[in-house]
Amino acid sequence: MISRTSSQATANSAGPSKGWRAPPNGRRCARCFPTSAACESSISVAASAGSAAGLLNTGAKEVLGLDLSEKMLARARAAGPDAGIVYERADLDELSLPPTAFDLAYSSLALHYVSDAARLFQTVHRCLVPGGHFVFSTEHPIYMAPTHPGWSVDAEGRKTWPVDRYLVEGPRKTDWLAKGVVKHHRTIGTTLNTLIRCGFTIEHVEEFRPTDAQIAAKPELAEELDRPMFLLVSARR
Amino acid sequence: MISRTSSQATANSAGPSKGWRAPPNGRRCARCFPTSAACESSISVAASAGSAAGLLNTGAKEVLGLDLSEKMLARARAAGPDAGIVYERADLDELSLPPTAFDLAYSSLALHYVSDAARLFQTVHRCLVPGGHFVFSTEHPIYMAPTHPGWSVDAEGRKTWPVDRYLVEGPRKTDWLAKGVVKHHRTIGTTLNTLIRCGFTIEHVEEFRPTDAQIAAKPELAEELDRPMFLLVSARR
Repeated sequence: MISRTSSQATANSAGPSKGWRAPPNGRRCARCFPTSAACESSISVAASAGSAAGLLNTGAKEVLGLDLSEKMLARARAAGPDAGIVYERADLDELSLPPTAFDLAYSSLALHYVSDAARLFQTVHRCLVPGGHFVFSTEHPIYMAPTHPGWSVDAEGRKTWPVDRYLVEGPRKTDWLAKGVVKHHRTIGTTLNTLIRCGFTIEHVEEFRPTDAQIAAKPELAEELDRPMFLLVSARR
Repeated sequence: MISRTSSQATANSAGPSKGWRAPPNGRRCARCFPTSAACESSISVAASAGSAAGLLNTGAKEVLGLDLSEKMLARARAAGPDAGIVYERADLDELSLPPTAFDLAYSSLALHYVSDAARLFQTVHRCLVPGGHFVFSTEHPIYMAPTHPGWSVDAEGRKTWPVDRYLVEGPRKTDWLAKGVVKHHRTIGTTLNTLIRCGFTIEHVEEFRPTDAQIAAKPELAEELDRPMFLLVSARR
């Protein structure tokens, strides 16, 4: 069975916001993906153009790739391969999926655009088979919380990330991709407790850190050690 | 069955460090405690003097209160009530406990003094009955990470918490209680993954936020919304 990818970010487009850097490519989520599970039928929910196709590499034979943006869907279809992948347009805030249809649901850097995480997590929980996995990445709340999400330089010339309003959950307006894009700040606790209340078991929680080899190859990544940009979670139905 | 509390912090004593404030008293952990479970036999591991006695209020009939500090143990014994409580001196880094002996293990603001969390979590897991609960609070990694853990004031007069080295886990030297006290910084992900690898199921993760009523009663607590000081976790064997 197959279903959809909705990247609300890609609905609007412009330049990167202050402090943002694209993560190193490759196996950022490697430790979050189930290794032993049979994930023949997967759903890519609001991931990038290549993510649905990438799921074929995890052993999936059928993938449903969902995205809000027709442009992203067209790009994904054009990139191929399309054998085993069906792409559909979907809005994460209104998502509806067939019950017990997938072994694996995957979402990449989109959940912070979703206002009602509980509704989405319930929808994903219901679409998975018992024992099925939900793996996702989202912007890290340390990265998203600040009123001014950019580096500060302290009296000694040290760069710091000026956290405020961490415990004030709710919308954050940024100029990422387009002016005035709204993201929804949630603490790690809220994200995990919402998953647990929806019936998920937490399997792995990763605050993304570049490896020493990645930093050696690209020294500017060293600043990523100072504050995490990404949170990755693996949960089991 | 009963066991011990080791508060390594209380082994040394002095004034509070910059940015620290005692949390509002009362039910800080309320959402973390199991409400339905029968916790007749509990262990208080490295909590404050009153914590072991407080466990009697959760329904425990037998409590083992452990602390590293003889002074704290003496204070706890003097405070009473002592019916049902046995106090013992113990070092969390060398703790050994009887197997499947407790329904609930509780630790308050001590785990950040423990260098080998995996060893401690394994010991606690083993001492719990199947289905037993481990509830603990620890310093929040956002609070502990910075090179200079104190408020900064930005150009607009806004207070921010200058996070750096969040992803550099390991010792942090502070002057809390005594000069040069060593705490062990771990990300939330590391703490939770270590629990999961030891066999625990994560039940609740709370990044402590004072309530609106607490802030109304004590307006200086409002700054606690800007960055969390405490992480509270409830896990089940």
